[in-house]
Amino acid sequence: MLFHVEMTVNLPADMPEARAAEIKATEKAYSQKLQNEGTWRHLWRVAGSYSNVSIFDVEDNETLHHIISGLPLFPYMEIRVRPLCRHPSSVRDDDS
Amino acid sequence: MLFHVEMTVNLPADMPEARAAEIKATEKAYSQKLQNEGTWRHLWRVAGSYSNVSIFDVEDNETLHHIISGLPLFPYMEIRVRPLCRHPSSVRDDDS
Amino acid sequence: MLFHVEMTVNLPADMPEARAAEIKATEKAYSQKLQNEGTWRHLWRVAGSYSNVSIFDVEDNETLHHIISGLPLFPYMEIRVRPLCRHPSSVRDDDS
Amino acid sequence: MLFHVEMTVNLPADMPEARAAEIKATEKAYSQKLQNEGTWRHLWRVAGSYSNVSIFDVEDNETLHHIISGLPLFPYMEIRVRPLCRHPSSVRDDDS
Amino acid sequence: MLFHVEMTVNLPADMPEARAAEIKATEKAYSQKLQNEGTWRHLWRVAGSYSNVSIFDVEDNETLHHIISGLPLFPYMEIRVRPLCRHPSSVRDDDS
Amino acid sequence: MLFHVEMTVNLPADMPEARAAEIKATEKAYSQKLQNEGTWRHLWRVAGSYSNVSIFDVEDNETLHHIISGLPLFPYMEIRVRPLCRHPSSVRDDDS
Amino acid sequence: MLFHVEMTVNLPADMPEARAAEIKATEKAYSQKLQNEGTWRHLWRVAGSYSNVSIFDVEDNETLHHIISGLPLFPYMEIRVRPLCRHPSSVRDDDS
Amino acid sequence: MLFHVEMTVNLPADMPEARAAEIKATEKAYSQKLQNEGTWRHLWRVAGSYSNVSIFDVEDNETLHHIISGLPLFPYMEIRVRPLCRHPSSVRDDDS
Amino acid sequence: MLFHVEMTVNLPADMPEARAAEIKATEKAYSQKLQNEGTWRHLWRVAGSYSNVSIFDVEDNETLHHIISGLPLFPYMEIRVRPLCRHPSSVRDDDS
Amino acid sequence: MLFHVEMTVNLPADMPEARAAEIKATEKAYSQKLQNEGTWRHLWRVAGSYSNVSIFDVEDNETLHHIISGLPLFPYMEIRVRPLCRHPSSVRDDDS
Repeated sequence: MLFHVEMTVNLPADMPEARAAEIKATEKAYSQKLQNEGTWRHLWRVAGSYSNVSIFDVEDNETLHHIISGLPLFPYMEIRVRPLCRHPSSVRDDDS
Repeated sequence: MLFHVEMTVNLPADMPEARAAEIKATEKAYSQKLQNEGTWRHLWRVAGSYSNVSIFDVEDNETLHHIISGLPLFPYMEIRVRPLCRHPSSVRDDDS
Repeated sequence: MLFHVEMTVNLPADMPEARAAEIKATEKAYSQKLQNEGTWRHLWRVAGSYSNVSIFDVEDNETLHHIISGLPLFPYMEIRVRPLCRHPSSVRDDDS
Repeated sequence: MLFHVEMTVNLPADMPEARAAEIKATEKAYSQKLQNEGTWRHLWRVAGSYSNVSIFDVEDNETLHHIISGLPLFPYMEIRVRPLCRHPSSVRDDDS
Repeated sequence: MLFHVEMTVNLPADMPEARAAEIKATEKAYSQKLQNEGTWRHLWRVAGSYSNVSIFDVEDNETLHHIISGLPLFPYMEIRVRPLCRHPSSVRDDDS
Repeated sequence: MLFHVEMTVNLPADMPEARAAEIKATEKAYSQKLQNEGTWRHLWRVAGSYSNVSIFDVEDNETLHHIISGLPLFPYMEIRVRPLCRHPSSVRDDDS
Repeated sequence: MLFHVEMTVNLPADMPEARAAEIKATEKAYSQKLQNEGTWRHLWRVAGSYSNVSIFDVEDNETLHHIISGLPLFPYMEIRVRPLCRHPSSVRDDDS
Repeated sequence: MLFHVEMTVNLPADMPEARAAEIKATEKAYSQKLQNEGTWRHLWRVAGSYSNVSIFDVEDNETLHHIISGLPLFPYMEIRVRPLCRHPSSVRDDDS
Repeated sequence: MLFHVEMTVNLPADMPEARAAEIKATEKAYSQKLQNEGTWRHLWRVAGSYSNVSIFDVEDNETLHHIISGLPLFPYMEIRVRPLCRHPSSVRDDDS
Repeated sequence: MLFHVEMTVNLPADMPEARAAEIKATEKAYSQKLQNEGTWRHLWRVAGSYSNVSIFDVEDNETLHHIISGLPLFPYMEIRVRPLCRHPSSVRDDDS
C-alpha cells in the first residue's frame, strides 16, 4: 500500500553543527536501510529547498506512522501524508 | 530530468456526460502513450479525491509544458509543478 | 485500518429540487448499507454546516477510494482524507 | 453531547527531555482517566504526525473547556474544536 | 449554552429580485421569532459587509444545528460556529 | 458604537510563571473595571482555546485603540477588530 | 472618524455591457457626491487591478455601513474594512 | 507617485525595554522628517493593532525602497507594498 | 522603472472558441507591440500552467495601470504586481 | 533552461552583526560570480522588502539545486522555485 509523504526540514538556527551532522548521518542510515528493504520506494529532493517527496510502501497506517515518527529528523520536520492507490489510467499493475 | 506534478480535476457541473466521457477517453490514451514511452514515469490516484500525483521524466521545461498543456483535461485542472533532483540519501542513481 | 474523512456538500444553486432529493436518497441508502456492514464506522454531522466527519474501517487505500468515489454526492463534495492509527494513550485495543 | 477536537503538539525544541517525559506521562494518565469515565470517547493518532483526533462526550461547552484547558500539554498544542450532532443518515441513535 | 455564529450571505447573481426579497422576508420573520424567544440572543451586522455576528443560547448542539440549517438563507451562506463559555474575568454570571 | 474584538493569547514558553501570573492579574482588574463601566459589554471564552470574543461599546476608533493597546496582555495577543452596527432584523434598538 | 476600506470588483462574465456601464455610471456619481461632501476623503486605484483603496470620514459605524451597502457595485465587490485612528508619530492633528 | 504601504511591528519578546524605546524614538524622528518633507503623505494607526497604513509620495521604486529599508524598525516589521494611481472617479487631480 | 507582474488566465468554460481565439490574437498583437517598444521587457510562460511572469519598464504607476488594464484578457486574469528596484548585489547598472 | 526563483531573507534577531555582515559579503561574491558567468541572469530587489526575484539559466534541476542550496544565506531564506519556458507571444527566441 503506497503513501505519498512530503517532508520539509527546519533545524533550529542555534543547533550546534556537530549535533546537526550527527542527526543527519543517523537519518541517512535509517533512510537507506528502509530503501534497501523496499519500504521507502522513492526519495526525491525538491530542487531549491530542504524538502523531499517520498513514496512509502507499507502494510498499513500503523506501520507508516511507526516509520515516520521514528525518523531522527521527525521533531524538526513539517510532514504531509496522502494515501495513494492505483490510477485507472496507469499502464502498470504494480506501480514501482 | 524529473518533475513532480499534482493535478486536480474540476469538470463543470453542467458538462454533458457524453462530452465528459469523450475527454476522459482521449486523456487516458494520451496518458498511456506517454507512460509507455517512459516520459510519464509514475501516475498515482490520491485516495478519496479526483486528483493524481505524477512524475514526469523530460528533457527540459519546454517539453514539460508542451506535454501538460496538451492534456485534454488541461482547461479543467488545477496543476502544481515542482522540479525534482537526486536526494543525497537515495540509494539509486537513477530513481525510477 | 481506519481513515478520518471530512466531507462538505456544495450542491449547484440551480440543481432541480427533485434531482437533489433523488441524489440524497441514494446517498443515504449507500451510506447506511456501509454503516451496517461496519465499513463506515462513524458518521457525524458538524453542527451548523452541511458537512460531516466520518470514520471508515477498510482493508486498504484502494478500498477507501472505491467507496468514496462511489458516493452519489462525490462530484459535489469537498473531501479531506487522513489515515489514522492507534494512539499510544488509548485505552482500547480496537478503537470502535 | 459530542465534540470533535483536533490537537497538534509543538514542544519547544529546547525543553529538557526529562521535563517533556514528565508532561507526557501526566497527560497520558489524565487522558486515560477521562477515557475510562466515557468522557473522552475516541482518541486516534493521525498517521505520520504528532497530532490526534478526539471525540469528547460532555454535558456542555463549559465542561469541554474545563477538560481541554486542563490538559498538561495544553500550552503546547494547537487545538480546533467543532460541535457534532447526529447525522440524519446515521444508523445509530447514540453514535458511540 | 452559548454559541458564536458568523454568517456571510452570497446570493447567486442571477436570482430574481422577487425570489430574493421573499427569502429575506421569511428569514427576518424566522430570526425575529427566535430573538423574541431568547434563543437568538444577539444579532449584529458587520459594518460594510453582508455578514452578521450572532450569539445563540441553546440547549445542545442538536438544537443549534436544527435552527441554523432551518434558516431560509442557509443554502446561500458561509457559516462558522464556535462554542462559547464563561470567561474567568467576566463580571456577570449569566452573560446576556 | 460597538466593535467585535477577538483576542488570542500566546505567552512565550519561557516566561517565568510569576511574571505570567502578575500580567494576568493586572489584565483581569483592567478588564473588570471596563466591564463595570459598560465599555466592555461582553466577554466570552472560546471553548477549548486561550481566546476570547469581546464586544466593546466606545465613542470612537480612538477610544477603542486606547483601550486595546492598554491591555497588559496586548504585546502577547493576536487581535482582530470588526466594526458592528444594528442589524435590520434585530428586535432590539440598543443591542445590549 | 476614519475607516480604511478596500474594494475589489468582480462583475459576472455574462453581465450585458450596457448593464455594466449603467451600474458604473451610477457608482461614479454616487462616489463623487460623497467625495465632494468630504465623506469619501480619498479614493485611489491599486495599479494593475480592478480594486481601490479608500478612506472614509464618517460619524459612526452605522453611517459607514449605510454608505458602503448603498454602493451600486456593492453586490459585486469583495470589501475589507479597518477602523483607523491617529498615529502617535503623525505630524498632523487632522490627517486629511 | 503614490504607494500604499502597510506595516505591522513584531518586536522580539526579549528585547530590553530601553533598546525598544530607543528604536521607537529614532523611528518617530525619521518618520516625522519624511512627513514634513511631504514624502510620507499619510500615516494612520489601524485601531486595535500595532500596525499602520501609510501613503508615500516618491519619485520611483528605488526611492521607496531606500526609505522603507532605512526605517529603524524595518528588521522587525511585516510590510506590504502596493502601487497606487489616480482613480477614474476621483474628484481631485492630485490626491493629497 | 521596473515592475514584476504575474498573470493567470481563467477563461469561462462556456466562452465560444471563436471568441476566445479572437481575444488571444488581439492580446498577442498588443503584447508584441509593447515588447518591441521595450515596455514589456520580459515575458515568460510558467511551465505547466496558463500563467506568465512579466517584467514591465514604465515611467510610473499610472502608465503601468493603463497598460495592464488595457490587456484584452484583463477581465479574465488574476494579476499580482510588485515594484522592483536595483539589487545591491547586481552586476548590472541597468538590469535589462 | 530558465527558472524563476523568489527568495526572502529572515535573519535571526539575535545573530551578531559581524556574523551577519560576513554571510552577506560571502553571498554577494557568490552571487556576482554566478551573474558574471551568465547563470544568474537577473537579480532584482522587491521594493520595500528583504526579498529578491531572480532568473537562473541552468542545464538541469540538479544544477539549480546545487546553486541555491550553496547560497550562504540558504538556511535563512524562504525560497520558491518555478520552471519557466518560452511564451508563445514572446518576440525573442532567447529571452535574455
